[in-house]
Amino acid sequence: MSELQDLLRPDLRGRTAYGAPQIDVPVRLNTNENPHPPSAALVADLAASVAAAAEQLNRYPDRDAVALRGELAAYLSSATGVPLDASRVWAANGSNEVIQQLLQAFGGPGRTALGFGPTYSMYPLYCVGTGTGWVDADVRDERFGLDVDRAVAAVQEADPDVVFLCSPNNPTGTAVPPDAVERLYAATRGILVVDEAYAEFGGATSAAVLLEGRPRLVVCRTMSKAFAFAGGRLGYLAAAPEVVDALQLVRLPYHLSVVAQEAARAALRHADETLASVAAVREQRERIVEVLRARGLDAVDSDSNFVLFGRFADSGKVWQALLDRGVLVRDVGLPGWLRVTAGTTDETTTFLDALAAALDLLGETA
Amino acid sequence: MSELQDLLRPDLRGRTAYGAPQIDVPVRLNTNENPHPPSAALVADLAASVAAAAEQLNRYPDRDAVALRGELAAYLSSATGVPLDASRVWAANGSNEVIQQLLQAFGGPGRTALGFGPTYSMYPLYCVGTGTGWVDADVRDERFGLDVDRAVAAVQEADPDVVFLCSPNNPTGTAVPPDAVERLYAATRGILVVDEAYAEFGGATSAAVLLEGRPRLVVCRTMSKAFAFAGGRLGYLAAAPEVVDALQLVRLPYHLSVVAQEAARAALRHADETLASVAAVREQRERIVEVLRARGLDAVDSDSNFVLFGRFADSGKVWQALLDRGVLVRDVGLPGWLRVTAGTTDETTTFLDALAAALDLLGETA
Repeated sequence: MSELQDLLRPDLRGRTAYGAPQIDVPVRLNTNENPHPPSAALVADLAASVAAAAEQLNRYPDRDAVALRGELAAYLSSATGVPLDASRVWAANGSNEVIQQLLQAFGGPGRTALGFGPTYSMYPLYCVGTGTGWVDADVRDERFGLDVDRAVAAVQEADPDVVFLCSPNNPTGTAVPPDAVERLYAATRGILVVDEAYAEFGGATSAAVLLEGRPRLVVCRTMSKAFAFAGGRLGYLAAAPEVVDALQLVRLPYHLSVVAQEAARAALRHADETLASVAAVREQRERIVEVLRARGLDAVDSDSNFVLFGRFADSGKVWQALLDRGVLVRDVGLPGWLRVTAGTTDETTTFLDALAAALDLLGETA
Repeated sequence: MSELQDLLRPDLRGRTAYGAPQIDVPVRLNTNENPHPPSAALVADLAASVAAAAEQLNRYPDRDAVALRGELAAYLSSATGVPLDASRVWAANGSNEVIQQLLQAFGGPGRTALGFGPTYSMYPLYCVGTGTGWVDADVRDERFGLDVDRAVAAVQEADPDVVFLCSPNNPTGTAVPPDAVERLYAATRGILVVDEAYAEFGGATSAAVLLEGRPRLVVCRTMSKAFAFAGGRLGYLAAAPEVVDALQLVRLPYHLSVVAQEAARAALRHADETLASVAAVREQRERIVEVLRARGLDAVDSDSNFVLFGRFADSGKVWQALLDRGVLVRDVGLPGWLRVTAGTTDETTTFLDALAAALDLLGETA
């Protein structure tokens, strides 16, 4: 309908909606979900909590989600050793919404955000949605590690208002240590967002240890991955109280439903049992790396719950051959490479077998 | 922290966060909530549905929320007589998020949205959040009714990209009929958003009857009010499929959690029993109007679940005197007026008694 096309913002025309294919196949290893479902105890606790809260569903939720933010702060404090409380933590419907709010407050028209590609493909899309300019700084080495000297130079040259540093980096897998974060913070006058969505799967020190005295530093986290809570949509960040105050100027009032708040609080009460699954996921990640390398393929070192592997003459063909065998992995748009999430032992076996069969058939090698 | 103030977008500096005071008082009649809690059957159904869905919380939700959108379409079809399906309905975390997405797609930097003040105070704030210009057209008569001739002229003169028509209007209460909507649609080249958040409380015909053949018309609804689901945060709209497609370009992926989707679906299954509470709310609304007028006060006719009343020499003093008596109403920023939500019979009695006592004390009259 051309009338509507003309009304659409010019930068949206001709685009297609973002999103990994949601294909119903036996083994889905394409969106970095935790393959381990929540425990029966967590589900029961969550259901009881939601039921109790639902008796007042006619009332708006706590607009500031103070109880939930306090409990997220307590978890992150225990995980990082950094003292935090609700005034330093903000939460929203997925880290998607957290980052969109950051760009609404500190980015937007006439401003730019910078990221170090290849990195999380949503960053430029948050920029489109908020009218923020996007700078993709190509400063990674051939193993996709961050070349910190070049990263610092790129930040100084572009002078962005917001810098995104995904660590561990999606889709490549590796984390950067705090000293690199410190150098990037010193190099920018803007907000530095360290996106630690996959932090629990690695051994790197959280950038949260740098928060004290750095009011422009933001550490972003999610419950989607290690907490096995992708369906619950709960992202959060730790930062200076002034950053949290700024986000309250742009957040939609009552953005977190009472159901979202209570479900997340229930999940946090069962953090210990859920996070126990992280070790199993790591094991499968290491298994993937070893088996692929033994086969002569390339697999990038990973601190996360996925592995970038290749290189293929035609990665699209390998993707399709895996799908034909009931295994969905992710084509992240890096020619020659594919990304696979570490699944359960069985899922991982199915993937490895399917890949072996696909490569035998296609004759593709590294 | 001045370093952060300088980084904040200039149009946000010095602002305070939006939101009605969330004060813990016995009678809260300030946010137009439905005073009737959900039925025990609804709560049990919701808890069971959420528990079943929670077994897969490690997986992302259906990104397109197709089942929920289909069920919202079925409800709106039955309520309005207009054939609708999922392709014509979009849902998000509150109508807040629906409207923000509309502005991300059709508003934004260099574009403007127009509303007819006094109207819903979030419209200009959605504009701030999305960088959209805001035009407040002062075209209401002294009873806050829309002067359609002047409204048409204002739209033609301002030539906005998006027009917001709140009907029934918050905070004044009255709805506009479809022929007025039709004239406004013909007067604008932009998107016309008819916000029917309070439609179920009135008797007016929904603008949905005009959707056929009008691709720029959007009818916005919420489950917060008549559905007594404010805590669940579920807003939705009906429009041409092309509008729904456009919103999918700016929506954050997986914006609706599986918990949100299942809770809303449970609430919709109990629509008949929940909507039965609407008649009781209407009765209390009419009671408020009658009692206030009998006392010589002014009360604006209302098609919604609230009443704008006055006029007071100092409405702030009346607001405080009511709060001192445990009743929280809304100061909507209209000098001389206050807005009260129709509560339960008991809540309404408490309000009316508190107002009588306050006015006796203050000596305030119309």
